[in-house]
Amino acid sequence: MATLSLHPDRLFPTDPTVRHIARELYQHIKNLPIVSPHGHTDPAWFATNAPFANPAELLIIPDHYVFRMLYSQGVTLEQLGIPRRDGSAVETDPRKIWHHLARNYHLFRGTPSRMWLDWVFAEVFGIDVRLEANTADHYYDIINAALATPSFRPRALFEKFNIEVIATTESPLDELKHHRALRASEWKGRVITAYRPDIVVDPETQNFAENLIQFGKLSGEDVSTYAGYLRAHRNRRAYFREAGATSSDHGHPSAFTANLSASECETLYQRVRHGRATSAEDAELFRGQMLTEMARMSIEDGMVLQIHPGVYRSHNLTVLEKFGRDKGADIPLTTNYVHALKPLLDAYGSDPRLTIILFTLDETAYSRELAPLAGHYPALRLGPPWWFHDSPEGMRRFREQVTETGGFYNTVGFNDDTRAFFSIPARHDVARRMDCAFLARLVSEHRMELDEAHEVAHALTYDLVKAAYKL
Amino acid sequence: MATLSLHPDRLFPTDPTVRHIARELYQHIKNLPIVSPHGHTDPAWFATNAPFANPAELLIIPDHYVFRMLYSQGVTLEQLGIPRRDGSAVETDPRKIWHHLARNYHLFRGTPSRMWLDWVFAEVFGIDVRLEANTADHYYDIINAALATPSFRPRALFEKFNIEVIATTESPLDELKHHRALRASEWKGRVITAYRPDIVVDPETQNFAENLIQFGKLSGEDVSTYAGYLRAHRNRRAYFREAGATSSDHGHPSAFTANLSASECETLYQRVRHGRATSAEDAELFRGQMLTEMARMSIEDGMVLQIHPGVYRSHNLTVLEKFGRDKGADIPLTTNYVHALKPLLDAYGSDPRLTIILFTLDETAYSRELAPLAGHYPALRLGPPWWFHDSPEGMRRFREQVTETGGFYNTVGFNDDTRAFFSIPARHDVARRMDCAFLARLVSEHRMELDEAHEVAHALTYDLVKAAYKL
Amino acid sequence: MATLSLHPDRLFPTDPTVRHIARELYQHIKNLPIVSPHGHTDPAWFATNAPFANPAELLIIPDHYVFRMLYSQGVTLEQLGIPRRDGSAVETDPRKIWHHLARNYHLFRGTPSRMWLDWVFAEVFGIDVRLEANTADHYYDIINAALATPSFRPRALFEKFNIEVIATTESPLDELKHHRALRASEWKGRVITAYRPDIVVDPETQNFAENLIQFGKLSGEDVSTYAGYLRAHRNRRAYFREAGATSSDHGHPSAFTANLSASECETLYQRVRHGRATSAEDAELFRGQMLTEMARMSIEDGMVLQIHPGVYRSHNLTVLEKFGRDKGADIPLTTNYVHALKPLLDAYGSDPRLTIILFTLDETAYSRELAPLAGHYPALRLGPPWWFHDSPEGMRRFREQVTETGGFYNTVGFNDDTRAFFSIPARHDVARRMDCAFLARLVSEHRMELDEAHEVAHALTYDLVKAAYKL
Repeated sequence: MATLSLHPDRLFPTDPTVRHIARELYQHIKNLPIVSPHGHTDPAWFATNAPFANPAELLIIPDHYVFRMLYSQGVTLEQLGIPRRDGSAVETDPRKIWHHLARNYHLFRGTPSRMWLDWVFAEVFGIDVRLEANTADHYYDIINAALATPSFRPRALFEKFNIEVIATTESPLDELKHHRALRASEWKGRVITAYRPDIVVDPETQNFAENLIQFGKLSGEDVSTYAGYLRAHRNRRAYFREAGATSSDHGHPSAFTANLSASECETLYQRVRHGRATSAEDAELFRGQMLTEMARMSIEDGMVLQIHPGVYRSHNLTVLEKFGRDKGADIPLTTNYVHALKPLLDAYGSDPRLTIILFTLDETAYSRELAPLAGHYPALRLGPPWWFHDSPEGMRRFREQVTETGGFYNTVGFNDDTRAFFSIPARHDVARRMDCAFLARLVSEHRMELDEAHEVAHALTYDLVKAAYKL
Repeated sequence: MATLSLHPDRLFPTDPTVRHIARELYQHIKNLPIVSPHGHTDPAWFATNAPFANPAELLIIPDHYVFRMLYSQGVTLEQLGIPRRDGSAVETDPRKIWHHLARNYHLFRGTPSRMWLDWVFAEVFGIDVRLEANTADHYYDIINAALATPSFRPRALFEKFNIEVIATTESPLDELKHHRALRASEWKGRVITAYRPDIVVDPETQNFAENLIQFGKLSGEDVSTYAGYLRAHRNRRAYFREAGATSSDHGHPSAFTANLSASECETLYQRVRHGRATSAEDAELFRGQMLTEMARMSIEDGMVLQIHPGVYRSHNLTVLEKFGRDKGADIPLTTNYVHALKPLLDAYGSDPRLTIILFTLDETAYSRELAPLAGHYPALRLGPPWWFHDSPEGMRRFREQVTETGGFYNTVGFNDDTRAFFSIPARHDVARRMDCAFLARLVSEHRMELDEAHEVAHALTYDLVKAAYKL
Repeated sequence: MATLSLHPDRLFPTDPTVRHIARELYQHIKNLPIVSPHGHTDPAWFATNAPFANPAELLIIPDHYVFRMLYSQGVTLEQLGIPRRDGSAVETDPRKIWHHLARNYHLFRGTPSRMWLDWVFAEVFGIDVRLEANTADHYYDIINAALATPSFRPRALFEKFNIEVIATTESPLDELKHHRALRASEWKGRVITAYRPDIVVDPETQNFAENLIQFGKLSGEDVSTYAGYLRAHRNRRAYFREAGATSSDHGHPSAFTANLSASECETLYQRVRHGRATSAEDAELFRGQMLTEMARMSIEDGMVLQIHPGVYRSHNLTVLEKFGRDKGADIPLTTNYVHALKPLLDAYGSDPRLTIILFTLDETAYSRELAPLAGHYPALRLGPPWWFHDSPEGMRRFREQVTETGGFYNTVGFNDDTRAFFSIPARHDVARRMDCAFLARLVSEHRMELDEAHEVAHALTYDLVKAAYKL
């Protein structure tokens, strides 16, 4: 059996001089609390504090990073217990599901999933042998037993993980009952929501018309007019702010924005509000207009505007039909920002009261578009490397391609963007290590002084995220 | 005179720790046999075993990597002995042609051609001084003399190079007489063909209509209908499989695919089958449809489907008119995969019986599109860095940009893709060294354990190519 | 107070072996004279030799690299003394402006501006403490006092900076009076002009029609016909050559070229020559045609053709309206070269009498398009990393992505492209260090021999620029 141990110098460059500097920088920031301003954990976990079920339901079934890789090499989603839309049978024995991961764990070599999982195994569960076919049961038994104990309940882990604040993501149709319960509870953990209105903003969403009806009901506004629809957003944003929200978030197929006249907005709204028959052009135009509206509301209410564009969702038709959305088949797209954001930026890009945080899955935009934009517009900041690029090489490319034009201070620290709660400290730790590694190279090449690198490391880990997200 | 020697640690990172690990990994895989599943050597070489002519005809005239660089700096193609289409005079003295290379050898500094040529000079011909103007004749004489000896005949080199299997590439109009001769001979070298049907698939090919007539004749099928045309493919694919083929290969201007109804296919075929008058849209549509047909046939007959998209062929009009195609003037294009492959992937991407190997000359697709696609679809694998990117930096970027999302096991080892037979071991050696260098960095940064790196190095060199190409 | 000192090994890789080689290469080229073939210094400085005004007018107000970063973090352009178009009040106290830079100097950490400014502070002004809020006045006083002394006059610095030749950039409407004065003076400094005809080539330029009238007047040609318009160019090119010009330069939104018939040119010219009503298509077509015309004239008169494409100028509407053009709001665009340049290259790309120097702000084109094009066409060379990519990481990516396909000898050395006169040696020094760093890596990885690296370093620093620009 191979051993499992996490090397204290992991991810640091090998050169002794650089490694020494990276280590010194890291020592000063590694224990800073986790500020997680954008993620997808379930507020119910913290509100109910119920135990997690079993290793498969904790670490495989909800994690599309994990099951997509197994699927790519011939393990079926049924074998992994992913529920089918038609309710037909899938594997229900969590131990059998776990064995699929164990047997194929070599597929994850060189991937961040491997790094995160190993951290969870070693640091959270104290396992000291490598996951493979013949340690699968050993793993299963240890994890399963631990999950039944009080110290593996959500709140205990939240505290153990040294989380200062975590944001979940809810739609305007969510009544935020878990967040209200949390606010009413005695527990001190800070769990806030974020306003993610895609399902009432994107006319191509399934059930868009029904969503609008519900949106009107919850907000008490008449959403049959554009003005009423906007009032409904203002109403729900206020409701979300009461549950701690400091940001909205928008997942659009592109970064397209528009800034139409009031009458154009009204007629466009009337064309799209019934959903299904909407043309692709109208849908894009409406989404684009809504980003500008959200910016306007952000200036009023102080919420930060996050834009996550450029994904072809549910690319695999077979998987979509059988298993539904969010099953590891989302593929990034070429994403333009220069023309796309111009209407929004013409309207509000120079307004220092506004903060727009831009993300990308198209790394070619880093040096060509995003750093020049963020290095100019007062309202723009760059979010960290996202999703597929939330990885050591992805982080390295981000700093190398963004810093020289955009600087460090137009970035906003790290987002974990995950529902994999157990891996959150691992993800933040990777970002901290990679930032220290990058800074150490600058210091060792005499491109930055050590005292400044310490300041920047602290800013990237803690100060910038607190400031940008107003936490 | 400067010396020529190949350093045993070439291409390994300089840091002593990383280099030590790279060297150790490399020791275990450097002598593995060469599996060359995709290339352009001439089967006649191995069938006839005739000697190669002279240094210029061996190393300059057929190698567009070499003569394009000389041409870019003012040496004319006539001076290099490249035959003109009109038959007018070009340089015929191979020694004079050789002097052009020698005099301009500095132009290749930092290029893979330089590395491959130096390997050929040092390892195959035993030369120990650098090529330059005043060693030109020395080189010429040594190489010329060697070529006349038995140990420099194709079969002897095939064995010396430790080639386990090599695939050539033929069109369906090829009768494969050399492959048949090889199968009938007593020689044990494994030389197989691959099915490259571009000239009967791409309506924009010169002489497309004539090609179809010949295609019908060879297959014994009536190609005046789409159904007959598809039967002709099935027939020739079977014929190619008898000559060892395990793959088809498709060089298209884009990765566009289509999946039309039977009647749409028939009417489209009737529009394009006469060639010349075909619209660009119909040509693209037909090529796209044929990729889907080839995938369907692959599921039937087990052949692997290779797609090499995204090249503007014969960009230089002057060179095309005077010298014809394949003269170093092919330029890569921005290549989209996400929308382009959707029709094919919707049809067969989730079918584990199919293997599609994707290549690109647009490196921006690595992290944005190709790794996410290959990291999800069971049918997809990524081919190695290709053509201009078959180079140390190209290989490094490939691993850095592909691995974190696609893993190692959705890649298929190295392809040399060359007709430069003498350089084949050098090319495989570069890939082996660069993979070991990449793995050594992961190990030294504690991102992978050494025992796992050994396994991965073996897989990248030997196991994955054998499995992916069913060799 | 933190100290300021420039480490002699700055920008060299940390590994001792690589650093040692980089240092050795650099020792041999660091003192070579500066050849600056493309820049934006003001010829009046050298003609009049008047002293520079004060620290703010020297280092902040004219430098959009500097003020865009301050603006991006909330300092207004008014606070920085940038003049408004409407003449309304902006900060006029240079010391107050200077304090904004000092207070926010941390924003430039990791940027080339920081590196260039520190070099100016330390090397030109001899300052040994870091710029920050509490050293702002110390800095201001030292710089201000120095500027009043003879050794900080333009000509003295030109000589101190070891500038062999510098090219400024003028429009055809410029009468070149400073260049004429320089030619008539006894001062030996070589200051030449370059022909930048955008304002009489781009129909979308403000005042295009008026510019053409002036163009006709200065050239003595009747520009009401296309033939006369071309003659006017020939006339002004000749006039510029008398003022030392060896190159023209073209800043276009894209690299689009056209090669129309004479009659198409004439009718197109008649459509565009009145400026305002021109369609975007006609404007693009006319600019594209003019690149081909300029190539034709270059073959006649021997001038080198530089193309700087792919920028969205004045992206920020608010800043454009208040402050005008060139205020740090230019954003790069995705730039295609393969289709765009084909008409020009079909006409003249194979003509060895012509030199076209291509630049890009879209780094994705390096390996995909530019290196393959420059590695084939005799007329093409690649300009150095430009503008946002004139930076250590930008230079590294350029060499890593260009060299393997294009080689070193299809590049043309370094351009500083700046009006920040004091920083010119710093910029050239960064390029020299980064080239030596790149070469040192090749040598230490046994991909190049040391003697060859010395030759290449010399070529990249001095020989190639002299040859490409015919200086």
